Amino acid sequence: MLYRLSSVIVTGTLVLLGSVGGASCVPRARSFIYVVPDGYGPVSQTMARDYESITTGRSTPGRPNSAQIGVDEMLIGTVRTQAADNLVTDSAASATAFACGIKTYNGAIAVDEDGQPVASVLEAAHLSGFKTGLIATSRITHATPACYSAHVLSRDSENEIAAQQIGRTHPFGAYLDLLLGGGRRQFLPRKDGGQRTDDVDLVAWAKERGYGYAADRAAFDEAAAAGAEGRLPLPFLGLFASSHMAYELDRDETREPSLLDMTKAALASLEAASHNRSSSSSSPSQQGYFIMIEASRIDHAGHSNDGPGHIHDILMYNEVMAYLRDYVAAHPDTQLLSAADHECGGLTLPGRWDPRPLAAARRTSEHLVRLLGQYSGGDQRAYFRTALLPQYGLGDASDAAVDGMLETYRRRGATALVVAMGGALSDRAGIRWSTTGHTSVDVNLYGAAAGRDRQARMAALIGGNRDNTELPRYVEAALGVSIANATARLRSAQAGSSWVQRREELAAIKRAANLAAWNHVH
Amino acid sequence: MLYRLSSVIVTGTLVLLGSVGGASCVPRARSFIYVVPDGYGPVSQTMARDYESITTGRSTPGRPNSAQIGVDEMLIGTVRTQAADNLVTDSAASATAFACGIKTYNGAIAVDEDGQPVASVLEAAHLSGFKTGLIATSRITHATPACYSAHVLSRDSENEIAAQQIGRTHPFGAYLDLLLGGGRRQFLPRKDGGQRTDDVDLVAWAKERGYGYAADRAAFDEAAAAGAEGRLPLPFLGLFASSHMAYELDRDETREPSLLDMTKAALASLEAASHNRSSSSSSPSQQGYFIMIEASRIDHAGHSNDGPGHIHDILMYNEVMAYLRDYVAAHPDTQLLSAADHECGGLTLPGRWDPRPLAAARRTSEHLVRLLGQYSGGDQRAYFRTALLPQYGLGDASDAAVDGMLETYRRRGATALVVAMGGALSDRAGIRWSTTGHTSVDVNLYGAAAGRDRQARMAALIGGNRDNTELPRYVEAALGVSIANATARLRSAQAGSSWVQRREELAAIKRAANLAAWNHVH
Repeated sequence: MLYRLSSVIVTGTLVLLGSVGGASCVPRARSFIYVVPDGYGPVSQTMARDYESITTGRSTPGRPNSAQIGVDEMLIGTVRTQAADNLVTDSAASATAFACGIKTYNGAIAVDEDGQPVASVLEAAHLSGFKTGLIATSRITHATPACYSAHVLSRDSENEIAAQQIGRTHPFGAYLDLLLGGGRRQFLPRKDGGQRTDDVDLVAWAKERGYGYAADRAAFDEAAAAGAEGRLPLPFLGLFASSHMAYELDRDETREPSLLDMTKAALASLEAASHNRSSSSSSPSQQGYFIMIEASRIDHAGHSNDGPGHIHDILMYNEVMAYLRDYVAAHPDTQLLSAADHECGGLTLPGRWDPRPLAAARRTSEHLVRLLGQYSGGDQRAYFRTALLPQYGLGDASDAAVDGMLETYRRRGATALVVAMGGALSDRAGIRWSTTGHTSVDVNLYGAAAGRDRQARMAALIGGNRDNTELPRYVEAALGVSIANATARLRSAQAGSSWVQRREELAAIKRAANLAAWNHVH
Repeated sequence: MLYRLSSVIVTGTLVLLGSVGGASCVPRARSFIYVVPDGYGPVSQTMARDYESITTGRSTPGRPNSAQIGVDEMLIGTVRTQAADNLVTDSAASATAFACGIKTYNGAIAVDEDGQPVASVLEAAHLSGFKTGLIATSRITHATPACYSAHVLSRDSENEIAAQQIGRTHPFGAYLDLLLGGGRRQFLPRKDGGQRTDDVDLVAWAKERGYGYAADRAAFDEAAAAGAEGRLPLPFLGLFASSHMAYELDRDETREPSLLDMTKAALASLEAASHNRSSSSSSPSQQGYFIMIEASRIDHAGHSNDGPGHIHDILMYNEVMAYLRDYVAAHPDTQLLSAADHECGGLTLPGRWDPRPLAAARRTSEHLVRLLGQYSGGDQRAYFRTALLPQYGLGDASDAAVDGMLETYRRRGATALVVAMGGALSDRAGIRWSTTGHTSVDVNLYGAAAGRDRQARMAALIGGNRDNTELPRYVEAALGVSIANATARLRSAQAGSSWVQRREELAAIKRAANLAAWNHVH
């Protein structure tokens, strides 16, 4: 290896070495923003860029314009994603890799292949005095945010993940300063509409420990309005949906904040809180914050083979990244990295690709099929055809196509219809999906650091083609924190804790997770 | 744009400006190597890397190893590829973009949308005193090498491309110092087995003007052995196949050199020739050479949906790039860039992807179907099943599968059978192709310059996400040559020359080229 710097990483020593010219220091950061566009492959960005250019009238398919959008100018490399036990990763194994720096099995939430906990860079940052935050548009207990904040053998243990995230069963206690996302049902007992089988009300538990709380946009806006410059009071818990938050295409902005709304409030809050803490000293604290922000549902739309859902969540991701790029420019002590966990859907854009049919969709196929399920009238076919299909750009579907989709619904269920509608619209746009699961292609890596020197050092030290396990090593070194120390702290607190409770089930968990990743679930 | 340098390019002025901190100079190079892996998408590299790791026994699908191979450590960005008139480019429009720096229509060989010639960076280098070379494993008259060396309205005018490449009808005369590849038939009259309709023997024409010549490996080796350190006498023409050279998987090494063999001989020859030229002065010449090296047939295997053919040509590309990385390290005055023109085949690697079934193929499907066409015995089915299919890892195909493939052959021809065999083997490996044409995903960009400072400047000035038209501007600046000046020279010599002969056909050419790119041909 002669020209590109390679990172020779000794876990816990926070040293990245260049292979040429001796050691090269990672530029230090007071704060770090890590953004995960879940299920976003290389084709996703090409698709969203073409869509944006053509549907805004800047170009046509026969006279295209390839101008950059959003993240394009921040590209610094690509990332290899495979799991320890599979060429194709799920979100859990990949998030454990980029949160904690280790390869593990599909389905694992921040545990190694033996089921032993490994600390995330967020937990390491907390132990070193940094403020910490998580944002997701999925349930906040879903695999990606979970890997930064909890340790369980299986991603399906979302109730336990919630209990750890809010600190009830985590050895570090109530250590997260900010959680914003969906997944309220994992925090509430059944009597309050939740899915907790232990009857514990984690929202009440959190409030008792000083957390501010919002369950909808009104409460979120109210909390932000009460703070200076839109800051939320920390610690703060926002759970804006029982399960996942809405796709951007479906979002009712009076009910849920957007990913950008949440991002702005979170950065203002964490920035202020980490400065306030040291207000008695003459210089700002060296410890700022670490936040992970996930555009979670790019992935879900990939599983659904839903082009419009995929694109609109990608465009929101691009919008957030453009905001963060400017934010980093205005906060030179803050750095930004972003990479997906894996591709989803096996999307390709062959020769007759035309974005325009996708622009006819005003809702995701998942949303419309949910409406179909709620329909209680007497003529399901007419409702589907005249009330729902037009909202997906399929108002002129043939009799045979309509009957075929409804037959799919009756025989194979709602998810199959969601995919069938995605397929019908994809055919019109000339795009192809090869799977309702993940694929193994390397994903794009984006980064930003203020100033030419920092940006060049970031690109040299973590740009290029990287394994996903290398990414948290850069964050660790930039913040000057230690995943190894945090892991030791976790393990010393391990006796009797929940992550070992189902150790005997590990082999079965591994098998099930691989099947789920292959097929379509996560 | 705050952190990444952008290239603000004024054609012909050779200045790349950074948007931050004022002008930043492109590191100068005495020589430049540009490598084109035709039809190589992001998935292609993931696939070849997984294949290499698993078939060499370093890992298994259930215990994978994502270690880098070949080009991985040279990744510096990605490239947008669309044509002026289509979201999906063909090789001609894309090669015109990265050879000449302009967007043009699909099918165009180094002419703009009005059919006017635009010089390539190779032609510009020639005019500034650099040695020049072209290597391809396709016909040397195929789109990519053609765009560096000829100017015609349609890529299909390969006889005219040959005449320009060898200098008979090019305004610069016999200006190419080295041509190595396939395509002999475009240089020879029909009576000598060629396809020239003008009865001109371009090989004889070249020899009269001092070109050394080889039509097979023996002559190539003999010529190289006669020169010091394996150097070929320049100028030199090597045409190793009537049409395309063999896929790497099919190559008879006693008959054809590999892409690596040709690369080694070419660099030794061009390096020596450009130094010799200035041997009378006290310092080496500032003018070294420009060479374009194409791994042409990665693309053809994509069109055929032929996994083994695709992989083995990609592995050869990786081998060549690893050699070139070391070469650049040993020749700090030389720089290297490499990017594909476009993806081909719409390849994806979903959850059950397993490289091992692909390793059973010992020949490409194209080669085996050619053998089937040559079969003159009495039992075609038995020959296909027992002599051919086992060589493609399909020896145990069912009766129904064999009959289905032969029915495809009878009804739809050889190309359809090639694709059907590729599909059958792909099913076993769990890989998917969405098209027999190109797709529009951004492709990977690789680069190498000796030394940390040069490498960092290269990455800052041409790394990240780029349009394909930006790439030759970097080469132009590094070598200190002018495409604009060369274009002016070409155009002043245009009167009566061949590239205007069919101007009235331009609209029809554009339509046909777009159809071909969409479907499968180029």
